[in-house]
Amino acid sequence: MTQPRLDVLAIGNAIVDVIADADDGFLAEQSLDKGSMRLIDEAEAERLYGLMGPGREASGGSAGNTAAGLAALGIRTGFIGQVADDQLGAIYRHDIQTLGVDFLVEPRRDVGATARCLILVTPDAQRTMNTFLGAAQKLDASAIDHAAVADAGILYLEGYLWDPEGPRHAMEAAIDAAKAAGRKVAFTLSDTFVVDRHRADFLRLMDEGRIDILFANAMELAAMTGEDDFDAGVAALAPKLPLLVVTHGDQGAVAVAGEERARVAAEPIERLVDTTGAGDLFAAGFLAGQARGLGLEQSLKLGAIAAAEVIQHYGARPEKDLKALAGGLL
Amino acid sequence: MTQPRLDVLAIGNAIVDVIADADDGFLAEQSLDKGSMRLIDEAEAERLYGLMGPGREASGGSAGNTAAGLAALGIRTGFIGQVADDQLGAIYRHDIQTLGVDFLVEPRRDVGATARCLILVTPDAQRTMNTFLGAAQKLDASAIDHAAVADAGILYLEGYLWDPEGPRHAMEAAIDAAKAAGRKVAFTLSDTFVVDRHRADFLRLMDEGRIDILFANAMELAAMTGEDDFDAGVAALAPKLPLLVVTHGDQGAVAVAGEERARVAAEPIERLVDTTGAGDLFAAGFLAGQARGLGLEQSLKLGAIAAAEVIQHYGARPEKDLKALAGGLL
Repeated sequence: MTQPRLDVLAIGNAIVDVIADADDGFLAEQSLDKGSMRLIDEAEAERLYGLMGPGREASGGSAGNTAAGLAALGIRTGFIGQVADDQLGAIYRHDIQTLGVDFLVEPRRDVGATARCLILVTPDAQRTMNTFLGAAQKLDASAIDHAAVADAGILYLEGYLWDPEGPRHAMEAAIDAAKAAGRKVAFTLSDTFVVDRHRADFLRLMDEGRIDILFANAMELAAMTGEDDFDAGVAALAPKLPLLVVTHGDQGAVAVAGEERARVAAEPIERLVDTTGAGDLFAAGFLAGQARGLGLEQSLKLGAIAAAEVIQHYGARPEKDLKALAGGLL
Repeated sequence: MTQPRLDVLAIGNAIVDVIADADDGFLAEQSLDKGSMRLIDEAEAERLYGLMGPGREASGGSAGNTAAGLAALGIRTGFIGQVADDQLGAIYRHDIQTLGVDFLVEPRRDVGATARCLILVTPDAQRTMNTFLGAAQKLDASAIDHAAVADAGILYLEGYLWDPEGPRHAMEAAIDAAKAAGRKVAFTLSDTFVVDRHRADFLRLMDEGRIDILFANAMELAAMTGEDDFDAGVAALAPKLPLLVVTHGDQGAVAVAGEERARVAAEPIERLVDTTGAGDLFAAGFLAGQARGLGLEQSLKLGAIAAAEVIQHYGARPEKDLKALAGGLL
């Protein structure tokens, strides 16, 4: 097989984060469950936005954050996520392109507004997320550049985007294109609500051998397997996949590939500021290692390094030089 | 005179800040003068934006920041600044309204895009600003609600907006409306380039008694008077005005009203992070004191408190509870 043009091509929700301070009383008034993520429609997005305090806007989205981390690590990365032909769409495109990521979709006029995530930050540094998917959920199969998928070493898919039907079909088509070209498919479960709604689908994909690398955190693992015990969950899920990667918060992470098993501790940090993006950046570090042909342990270590950087500041995209932090690993 | 509906009505540029990290090499390549502010057209805004790194967006604008500070201090405040009927315009309106400021203009479709300030932050925490005024400079006299001006205790005008002709005429009409209603007019010189271009105009306004309170920093004072010595500059300018307020960085500030003279030291701070908005928030604190009928010294003290808050974090609008910081003064 020839060397692919891209190391990783990610598909996910193209979302602009709108971050505002809020107190516990506001969450209670709005019946919001602290620390949760919920999907909202445009009317609710407008209503809640009208009540929120002044915001700061920055590009986000789970796979988009992973793509940003990959590019920061010097990995040739592409991203597919639907934006509208509006100012927030232009901001999203600018932010990811200037990181060096190939942005592989055209903005569209017929898809409503670019997605926004209204993030309420309480004084305890927790984040409560309210996502209006807008244009992002209008991604359809015609937006997928099959030649680009076939020419990328790893296709990386965000579970959040499995929820709406159009993007799900687009991602299934992308999986087919990647598999036909002999490429690897990586998938992140994203959230327990995603697992609860699509468990059967995900098991089918695994049974069909269409997922090569699965990312989950401890809660998603439990939701997927029904096993509350971390090690029992890993033991139950690992046989279904060529490579399973599970993060376990400050206890580190584990990777299992057949008989091979590796574990890494969390990187030491000076100060925990904001855990948003931890999983996204862990995936970026791990995939960077895989793209460079590193072993499980070194790939896990890169994941831990990238995650440790992003949780020590506000925001879900890296600020420090990840390549420098990775040292001799890459 | 009856009690006015608003304590302060501010007129200024409605600008969304786009903040990105940059290194000295980038400033050199782009021939940008570190720490300066320059006006750019839409083509240059697009060009420079395309080269900048990923940005964070937040509402700004000098008088807008002052209005935000006034509202945070519990002062009844209105704001007039032209935005376009676009997403950044909606963001600007949302941010200032949810602070409790009356936003008194309608977005327009025929004014291009909402203004943006591309702010490059170098590792030494200095900010280099590139402002595309867009819709903001299309503010015209018809946008001024004369009844609202007549019903506001103090009209506060931003010197930056004196530069484009339409807003200048709009502000002259607003001054007339305020004066006819027996209200006070406050004016900030904003920048030395503004003073250099409009010195004669400003002297004429002072001679005609149309400015009651003038705000300047030490550099603007020097540009206005030709006196490099701070005290000599104050002595030269003060007789032209009922009330002159001059800030002097970490040396504090001085106010002169006829024979009365007051001086305040800068408030102690823990850490200087970002001086953007210092002058805007000083004006907010001082005007809050004036709106509440306080004397010069207490008004200066409020200015110093508000300025000290804003320079200890990134961004030009207050984050901590200014009313609490003001303690018993208000």
